[in-house]
Amino acid sequence: MHIGFLGLGNMGGPMARNLLKAGHQVTAFDLSKPALAGLVEAGAREAASVGAVAGAGVDVVITMLPAAAHVKAVYLGEDGLLAHLPAGVLLIDSSTIDPLSARDVAKAAAAHGNPMLDAPVSGGTVGAAAGTLTFMIGGAAEDFQRAQPILAAMGKNVVHCGASGNGQVAKVANNMLLGISMIGVAEAMSLGVALGMDAKVLAGIINTSSGRCWASEVNNPFPGVLENAPASRGYSGGFGTDLMLKDLGLASEAARQVRQPVILGALAQQLYQAFSLQGHGGLDFSSIIKLYAQEPEA
Amino acid sequence: MHIGFLGLGNMGGPMARNLLKAGHQVTAFDLSKPALAGLVEAGAREAASVGAVAGAGVDVVITMLPAAAHVKAVYLGEDGLLAHLPAGVLLIDSSTIDPLSARDVAKAAAAHGNPMLDAPVSGGTVGAAAGTLTFMIGGAAEDFQRAQPILAAMGKNVVHCGASGNGQVAKVANNMLLGISMIGVAEAMSLGVALGMDAKVLAGIINTSSGRCWASEVNNPFPGVLENAPASRGYSGGFGTDLMLKDLGLASEAARQVRQPVILGALAQQLYQAFSLQGHGGLDFSSIIKLYAQEPEA
Amino acid sequence: MHIGFLGLGNMGGPMARNLLKAGHQVTAFDLSKPALAGLVEAGAREAASVGAVAGAGVDVVITMLPAAAHVKAVYLGEDGLLAHLPAGVLLIDSSTIDPLSARDVAKAAAAHGNPMLDAPVSGGTVGAAAGTLTFMIGGAAEDFQRAQPILAAMGKNVVHCGASGNGQVAKVANNMLLGISMIGVAEAMSLGVALGMDAKVLAGIINTSSGRCWASEVNNPFPGVLENAPASRGYSGGFGTDLMLKDLGLASEAARQVRQPVILGALAQQLYQAFSLQGHGGLDFSSIIKLYAQEPEA
Amino acid sequence: MHIGFLGLGNMGGPMARNLLKAGHQVTAFDLSKPALAGLVEAGAREAASVGAVAGAGVDVVITMLPAAAHVKAVYLGEDGLLAHLPAGVLLIDSSTIDPLSARDVAKAAAAHGNPMLDAPVSGGTVGAAAGTLTFMIGGAAEDFQRAQPILAAMGKNVVHCGASGNGQVAKVANNMLLGISMIGVAEAMSLGVALGMDAKVLAGIINTSSGRCWASEVNNPFPGVLENAPASRGYSGGFGTDLMLKDLGLASEAARQVRQPVILGALAQQLYQAFSLQGHGGLDFSSIIKLYAQEPEA
Repeated sequence: MHIGFLGLGNMGGPMARNLLKAGHQVTAFDLSKPALAGLVEAGAREAASVGAVAGAGVDVVITMLPAAAHVKAVYLGEDGLLAHLPAGVLLIDSSTIDPLSARDVAKAAAAHGNPMLDAPVSGGTVGAAAGTLTFMIGGAAEDFQRAQPILAAMGKNVVHCGASGNGQVAKVANNMLLGISMIGVAEAMSLGVALGMDAKVLAGIINTSSGRCWASEVNNPFPGVLENAPASRGYSGGFGTDLMLKDLGLASEAARQVRQPVILGALAQQLYQAFSLQGHGGLDFSSIIKLYAQEPEA
Repeated sequence: MHIGFLGLGNMGGPMARNLLKAGHQVTAFDLSKPALAGLVEAGAREAASVGAVAGAGVDVVITMLPAAAHVKAVYLGEDGLLAHLPAGVLLIDSSTIDPLSARDVAKAAAAHGNPMLDAPVSGGTVGAAAGTLTFMIGGAAEDFQRAQPILAAMGKNVVHCGASGNGQVAKVANNMLLGISMIGVAEAMSLGVALGMDAKVLAGIINTSSGRCWASEVNNPFPGVLENAPASRGYSGGFGTDLMLKDLGLASEAARQVRQPVILGALAQQLYQAFSLQGHGGLDFSSIIKLYAQEPEA
Repeated sequence: MHIGFLGLGNMGGPMARNLLKAGHQVTAFDLSKPALAGLVEAGAREAASVGAVAGAGVDVVITMLPAAAHVKAVYLGEDGLLAHLPAGVLLIDSSTIDPLSARDVAKAAAAHGNPMLDAPVSGGTVGAAAGTLTFMIGGAAEDFQRAQPILAAMGKNVVHCGASGNGQVAKVANNMLLGISMIGVAEAMSLGVALGMDAKVLAGIINTSSGRCWASEVNNPFPGVLENAPASRGYSGGFGTDLMLKDLGLASEAARQVRQPVILGALAQQLYQAFSLQGHGGLDFSSIIKLYAQEPEA
Repeated sequence: MHIGFLGLGNMGGPMARNLLKAGHQVTAFDLSKPALAGLVEAGAREAASVGAVAGAGVDVVITMLPAAAHVKAVYLGEDGLLAHLPAGVLLIDSSTIDPLSARDVAKAAAAHGNPMLDAPVSGGTVGAAAGTLTFMIGGAAEDFQRAQPILAAMGKNVVHCGASGNGQVAKVANNMLLGISMIGVAEAMSLGVALGMDAKVLAGIINTSSGRCWASEVNNPFPGVLENAPASRGYSGGFGTDLMLKDLGLASEAARQVRQPVILGALAQQLYQAFSLQGHGGLDFSSIIKLYAQEPEA
């Protein structure tokens, strides 16, 4: 398969490499010369612009971009993909953006004869490198079928979430819940310890009770409870606070557009924002427990 | 074993019955004549007062009372247990109260020569009747050993949480987290559906992703997602909103006493309170999702 | 003066009428034929399009539009104002939009040789009709001077808030605080009455104490405290919940863009959203007190 | 008049001095020897115990104590006031405690033949020294009349709030609103400045608009806006964060008892708690704005 790839950042770069490893032909473009050169070294063809990717005879185009504004520019801009692509080329956007923008772009693509899937991922840079990402897909069932073998080269879990935009919906809904439950775990652990309990004993009880959740079991924010969690290595690695903040911003903005209250979701967003302001945006989001610590910097 | 039992309400009644079934001798007292008569019919001896239970030659006393004020009155009152009990009798309080009160009473009991365990339960009236409660125990290891065979007649899971009061700590910490994550699930499900996703598909994705938690997997608040959850039978049965409200009140009060912030915990408490005010205190706490519904009473 | 006017809705219509009353010549356009016809009857000239207003030889253009998307379309669109206006014409946008969009449009206008002021108002439809609006102005001092006599025909209070965008900043900051303090008053009044106090006595004490604020003194949400407040006439008239919701949305979105936490502001937004969902979006925003009422619909 | 005075701390000490200055005879007791000695030097008679004050032939007893537990001990304890006082002596409790406890103690006093007023104050240590406190009084009208000349020696504003407990209700309701609006002002000022506005200009606009409140006009939290506010002297002096925290704790606990939601009130409490945890409990509560600062310690 000949795949066009746009956006070779921390996520897109390793994803494109996995496509090459799987034997696909990749024509790529990125504004960063070093990022582009790195992928060319790994076997990709270099394109000189977005339009050049569109005109290179690709079967599929995959994009991995920072925000909705970039997605709109790349797809809908004057020199963008839709201006140059032949009809029928499948479009897969793996950026995390708000569902309504995703649907707008997919509608424009459909009008141009290009089926499009929204395909945001979870799994972080580690999953991108290892090819173990989870893809949440919104779009028509037949397009999902067509994309599956390609996505399988980059992830191990590819889930169809329904019609266009629903991949983004699933991601923001899941991550909003994750952002809330992480703060919930941080509060419950901090409260239990402040009241005299051992953190490991408390985590053990929660994890076999009705409070259990991914944040308590897999990424417990209390230092020392889980040997391999970010909390036990100074909150390095993992999923950064500022990335969680971006996803919570998408969730509350999408909620506003459909007039849906998300009370804890909005409060969680503000707490991560206040915490980021204190200089912790680069730490794993479980570090939010520091907001609750007797010694904030311990 | 000869066991004294005080407090024969919705929880205490079935618990005492299970002790009788297991072959223990039970001497009981309750202010409610019918409750007491019911247990006597099941084989218990009736005592005429708290003091009479204490003086009946019991090996162990178990209490199951509504709130800390009752616990203090029953143990420390003028005609209370400590005023009449011989030293050495083991005391087990299964009431859910704040940890600091639990420790105060246990300290008074210890001074009087009576070892005491705090032993709050989870599992509700269904678990009480079936003998499948979980007991969270605070107190000395040797007293925990001594209590275990007795508690095994009433529950299937008996967990030692550490020193005196820690049973209560574990319970309030776990239930605060549960109260938060239920609202988080309610918001995530409501948002996803408002944005056009199918509720079952969304629940499936969350339950295999980082948002998964007991509230999404076992007691999903969205109607129709889980056939056997309260949400699929009009929120009847289950764990009432007003009981969750009581536990969140204990959590935030305990937090205040040790000067520990519980930001989402306190907000969750207020949301259940506002919801209860609208007349829903008797519904399973997952009904909080109605706060987020386009048709609040649907 | 010859003034172009775009946007003849509930606010813009009466504002334009006041310009006519003050002796100005007005050339107007609106997509609504009846709105446009109404103003023509009052003495305005009708223009056939946005571009036609721009080409009519006006000295000043005033716009009063629902949201940033409309403002961008009217000023920057293909057939928009900047495409047709001669340099030097003063632009005044009285729409309430986010400060960053206001600055973007003003920058584009400046590049085109047109000074621009952001000039959002407070005072509602009553103030628009009576010519007693407050204008909060962002832009250069000399442009503010030039605009003042025109704005004086529509308002009685014209405040210079600093450079471009600052009119919008002042409005969203003030209204976010107003939205918060109204809920604060609703909670304080409801709590006091639930604890047994007379509402009027409590309001009197608050209004001579450190809790006093515009929301307690002028628009007290408790029915019967102020004879002329919306609370004493079923919350009709006044400033609608959905308008407050719009302003809180602008505030939290602007806060997100500059990475500034607004914790109570975001929570207030969600509470008005939940309340609006229950069908109360058209009532004065002081009706939020119903969220706290023992009888929610009393 | 012969007045008994119990509790000679930062507030009670200067209050008792003002009674002496006004020509009253004062018999006092405090557990702190130096506090008691200081007042004796100023002309008071020393009593050896609570009971000794009660037996000294006083016409009135005034108490100024830290919390409800102390009030209950002093009035209801074995060697407490009610155990020793003749009927008819008027009791005035100026402590700030929860309304329900205040009513319980007043009921016990009434049963003993002693009319009692709850009379919490605002005005801080500065007002206590200057004799300019505000007293919020709960109790019978005739007892309020009787107390007025005495209280006038210590304050300049004595307000009757209704029946027993209502003085406490007025205080917690007002201070909860104050705690909320201070955070609201902190957020609005921080947001406006982050968006590019001058702090003084913004404060000026808010103070002539619908956002105005005591916290923006008299104790603006932004440094430099008001020359004489704590914000302009490093937040020293004023009303400490931990005192605000105590009052918010009383408010949310009273709300819990009557099942009244106080959503922003509870969140405000948690934010002051988190802020206090970072070591700022001794600063004026307007320092909460540091939670929102780009440089938290600037």
